[in-house]
Amino acid sequence: MKRIGVLTSGGDAPGMNAAIRAVVRKAIYEGLEVVGIYHGYQGLIEGNMEELDLGSVGDIIQRGGTKLLSARCPEFRTIEGQQKAIEQLRANQIDGLVIIGGDGSYRGSMTLTKNGFPCVGIPGTIDNDIPGTDYTLGFDTALNTVIDCIDKIRDTATSHDRTFIIEVMGRDAGDLALWAGLAGGAETIIIPEVDYNIEEVVERLKSGTARGKKHSIIIVAEGVMSGSEFAAKLMEHASIETRVSVLGHIQRGGSPTGRDRVLASMFGARAVEVLLTGQGGRAVGIQNHQVVDYDMNEAFEKNEVFDSIMYQLSKELSI
Amino acid sequence: MKRIGVLTSGGDAPGMNAAIRAVVRKAIYEGLEVVGIYHGYQGLIEGNMEELDLGSVGDIIQRGGTKLLSARCPEFRTIEGQQKAIEQLRANQIDGLVIIGGDGSYRGSMTLTKNGFPCVGIPGTIDNDIPGTDYTLGFDTALNTVIDCIDKIRDTATSHDRTFIIEVMGRDAGDLALWAGLAGGAETIIIPEVDYNIEEVVERLKSGTARGKKHSIIIVAEGVMSGSEFAAKLMEHASIETRVSVLGHIQRGGSPTGRDRVLASMFGARAVEVLLTGQGGRAVGIQNHQVVDYDMNEAFEKNEVFDSIMYQLSKELSI
Amino acid sequence: MKRIGVLTSGGDAPGMNAAIRAVVRKAIYEGLEVVGIYHGYQGLIEGNMEELDLGSVGDIIQRGGTKLLSARCPEFRTIEGQQKAIEQLRANQIDGLVIIGGDGSYRGSMTLTKNGFPCVGIPGTIDNDIPGTDYTLGFDTALNTVIDCIDKIRDTATSHDRTFIIEVMGRDAGDLALWAGLAGGAETIIIPEVDYNIEEVVERLKSGTARGKKHSIIIVAEGVMSGSEFAAKLMEHASIETRVSVLGHIQRGGSPTGRDRVLASMFGARAVEVLLTGQGGRAVGIQNHQVVDYDMNEAFEKNEVFDSIMYQLSKELSI
Amino acid sequence: MKRIGVLTSGGDAPGMNAAIRAVVRKAIYEGLEVVGIYHGYQGLIEGNMEELDLGSVGDIIQRGGTKLLSARCPEFRTIEGQQKAIEQLRANQIDGLVIIGGDGSYRGSMTLTKNGFPCVGIPGTIDNDIPGTDYTLGFDTALNTVIDCIDKIRDTATSHDRTFIIEVMGRDAGDLALWAGLAGGAETIIIPEVDYNIEEVVERLKSGTARGKKHSIIIVAEGVMSGSEFAAKLMEHASIETRVSVLGHIQRGGSPTGRDRVLASMFGARAVEVLLTGQGGRAVGIQNHQVVDYDMNEAFEKNEVFDSIMYQLSKELSI
Repeated sequence: MKRIGVLTSGGDAPGMNAAIRAVVRKAIYEGLEVVGIYHGYQGLIEGNMEELDLGSVGDIIQRGGTKLLSARCPEFRTIEGQQKAIEQLRANQIDGLVIIGGDGSYRGSMTLTKNGFPCVGIPGTIDNDIPGTDYTLGFDTALNTVIDCIDKIRDTATSHDRTFIIEVMGRDAGDLALWAGLAGGAETIIIPEVDYNIEEVVERLKSGTARGKKHSIIIVAEGVMSGSEFAAKLMEHASIETRVSVLGHIQRGGSPTGRDRVLASMFGARAVEVLLTGQGGRAVGIQNHQVVDYDMNEAFEKNEVFDSIMYQLSKELSI
Repeated sequence: MKRIGVLTSGGDAPGMNAAIRAVVRKAIYEGLEVVGIYHGYQGLIEGNMEELDLGSVGDIIQRGGTKLLSARCPEFRTIEGQQKAIEQLRANQIDGLVIIGGDGSYRGSMTLTKNGFPCVGIPGTIDNDIPGTDYTLGFDTALNTVIDCIDKIRDTATSHDRTFIIEVMGRDAGDLALWAGLAGGAETIIIPEVDYNIEEVVERLKSGTARGKKHSIIIVAEGVMSGSEFAAKLMEHASIETRVSVLGHIQRGGSPTGRDRVLASMFGARAVEVLLTGQGGRAVGIQNHQVVDYDMNEAFEKNEVFDSIMYQLSKELSI
Repeated sequence: MKRIGVLTSGGDAPGMNAAIRAVVRKAIYEGLEVVGIYHGYQGLIEGNMEELDLGSVGDIIQRGGTKLLSARCPEFRTIEGQQKAIEQLRANQIDGLVIIGGDGSYRGSMTLTKNGFPCVGIPGTIDNDIPGTDYTLGFDTALNTVIDCIDKIRDTATSHDRTFIIEVMGRDAGDLALWAGLAGGAETIIIPEVDYNIEEVVERLKSGTARGKKHSIIIVAEGVMSGSEFAAKLMEHASIETRVSVLGHIQRGGSPTGRDRVLASMFGARAVEVLLTGQGGRAVGIQNHQVVDYDMNEAFEKNEVFDSIMYQLSKELSI
Repeated sequence: MKRIGVLTSGGDAPGMNAAIRAVVRKAIYEGLEVVGIYHGYQGLIEGNMEELDLGSVGDIIQRGGTKLLSARCPEFRTIEGQQKAIEQLRANQIDGLVIIGGDGSYRGSMTLTKNGFPCVGIPGTIDNDIPGTDYTLGFDTALNTVIDCIDKIRDTATSHDRTFIIEVMGRDAGDLALWAGLAGGAETIIIPEVDYNIEEVVERLKSGTARGKKHSIIIVAEGVMSGSEFAAKLMEHASIETRVSVLGHIQRGGSPTGRDRVLASMFGARAVEVLLTGQGGRAVGIQNHQVVDYDMNEAFEKNEVFDSIMYQLSKELSI
């Protein structure tokens, strides 16, 4: 392993730049050369890359987005596309790759690993939905962005005695909704992992009102339904009027939190260490407070872990 | 004038609490008693009020929303409702009122002034749409909230070479869209004051692309159309794919900026000074860097002022 | 256990209010009564307390500081003081206590536990220096406050080619300095756990300069020496001119981060659960990603845990 | 005027990058070429400069510090240094200059203007101490940074019943201290423009305590004395114990507020417009809500303007 590549793929997440920095600096510290590949697998296929030195990752640890840019790449799913990527790796004398992204990005890398270009994955997505790691890069930042929004919306909810529905990101995983809801003091949290019961939601709202609670925040993960669909249900079932706020893409941006920067630094360094052993098909993560690497295939399994204690707690504390 | 009341009415805006604090403290400083009326005119009609002292407005200068709560009050538009309000003012020995809110709130107060209860208005709305004052309370805070969102969305726009449409508040006034667009470096700003030409917008986007610009931010004031309607137009006219982000209610909340707190303090103090002279039907504001008070009727006139220089500048700087 | 008390003691930390809220709501959920004791042990001695209900902890999850106030209490270290406290507990029919604070606050509670009033501790301090828990309440918020300051100072360091020394809190533990230094991209981190070598620091600065690095950030934990002392050393040893910034008390305030709010919620709930079993002399914490409770005496042992991997990483990534 | 230069000089201030962007884009919009000069007058003397295009100022509007870097330059105060600068301007065919900085930076430019290279100044300093403009670039951002710190410190002041002294920047001008003090609800504000009376300060603190006020914030502008000197005085005169926080360099950094970005955009555009008329020795500013340009010599006069109404107001509202 003399020369490695690094790319970001899939949706951008805060902390990706900090991870790129860590990969580059750790690699150089270990005597490797590093090539930055732009626009994810698309850039790999097109040979859109350049060598990175210590200075090229200066002043990026605090930036949102990804300096290496990202893109979807349908072509890479074809055998022809993969062949082109392999040729580029050969032509550019790249011996291994660090892939920063979600599980889709991981999958793409398996072909490369099988073809003799070991790849190591770093989990970069605000959704916190990659099995094998307790946290993904960007989750902590997105969490803080969402609670900042909840705090702002609560100002108006309180001032006007209103119930707000806040739709947050999370197609398959409700982590962001659950954490943000608990941290934001939301009265009700609707997530993909738990079937909701509209009657129970209505009951909760009404009993709150009966006790003198005049405003309420409901968090809905987009994977369950949209905020406005949920609003329609509340109106239909119980004539409860609500306002809807869809947080949207602001959840994906912003300067990473301290925690995300530290995680990114540790993940980046570990990824380089794994590559140095010649291994591919591995993913790095944090498990029980320890940075680990594990078989990437585990990341494709269905995530069975759901923090039901936390969900229950959110209910108990928002009575 | 021995005892005055203060209420907030209409949509809440950051800085309302700072204004309440200033009214209360200035009034007490001047030897007056102050009554806080809850839920706007609704609370006035219902007699939902209590006397405020120095301590009751401690630790609120930095809080969003309004401690006095707000509400719409259709009843106050009826003669019967107004009569109840007047009776409450009499019963509670309130000699004059400070009304913090938008132009709708101002209008309501005219009846009271005419009935011998002088009212002074403080402009509290993020829309910056009240004639007679260069700035309204909350505008500066909302501006900073919006540019913070633009900065975050730009991370993703840049990382993915995408064009984003960001819908911001502003039914009749494009100030928030214009200021935020200029401050956020938006490439295109669509506001009620200027007819947009979809062909020109498309042309701009295309010439940007031709020059190598791969992402773009378009700000649309809600008063023109929704973000998704504008996205549909771009798709229809030129097959330009965009993402839409509707900022929504987060624009109304949050801790007020330094500028909004200072403005609130000066407005609150001036409102009390005007009441002390026995005058009603006045509004306070800032004109050309000076705190002023003026005939409230001027606030109901159509706001002809539009900063076309600023609009032109936003175009020149986003080439 | 029918009625419990809760107090905050020692230096305030972000998340204390969220923990108070969790204790109160969980307790009420479990059918207990809760008494809030003001000003820590001082208020306990003086009987300065009142019953809290669901509403009394509304709208505090996001607030810095502590609603219950805090104070040092030398009197509580005397037998007489402790006797008074016990009498107050009896008089107010309080069966057990939740103590939110640092290790000094924990120690105080041991006497009460021994006298039949079981106490459970929640670690609240930004210093992250309580053995038995991976994180204390407030640490994550302080971390983000510090890196926000580093980011700001880096603007000037970069613009002026200057080296800055930033002094952060941490008498015995360098966690805040180490995490913030790594997350802030600091070139050098000086902490109590590792003897620094001034020659090595100078060498690092000089080799950085030789490679074209024109500015540098040095983080010094206050427990090692003050920032200005370190500046004097650099001047004396190598005539290196630096600017010093002492972050001071801003590190202790501010709205808690999502992580601190979630931790506070889980800690508060667990503390009540432990009390419900009748146990005292326990502390709650988080170990390897799991909320735990453990013998409070373990919290008084010397913390041998130091993350030397993280320290080494900070060096490798700031080359 | 075919080709202009732009440089930043003196202490950096938030908004400088937004001003650079505006100068560059407006100039290119008007058909001019623009040269960015690094490290202020030092870079001018050394010929450290390069041509800037539209893209070179992309993505900087939101950044603190200055992309063009800054430096003190004693050499430029010598005739020899000025001669070198003039030669560089000739050699690089630069016809005029935009100088972004404080009054010291303005002074330096007068020599160049006299030698046939018209210079226009943009006020960039957080101190708000340049006569002829109501606001300087960076003031609004620094104001918000300071009140954010005050809000944080108030958490601890309140929780511990303490009095804090906060030292803020401002050698000759107390604007930052006054605005931040008013916006932060400080009980006492000590600024260069008003002689303080230690007995009166003590009296205020004591009467506050007598009324039940248990914590207090005192803002001291560094130009009066240091925070610790003031603390010593309070201890000496009345045995009042306080804590001191020196905000230091964090006041100079950070992403500019919306207001500073808009001001920077308008100032930059106006500076180019003035240069296009061939005039030099002018400064741009904002007066009574209007962007203006005026004879630079006015900026060297003693600033007699002091907002005594605002100072009085701060006293009345903090009773």
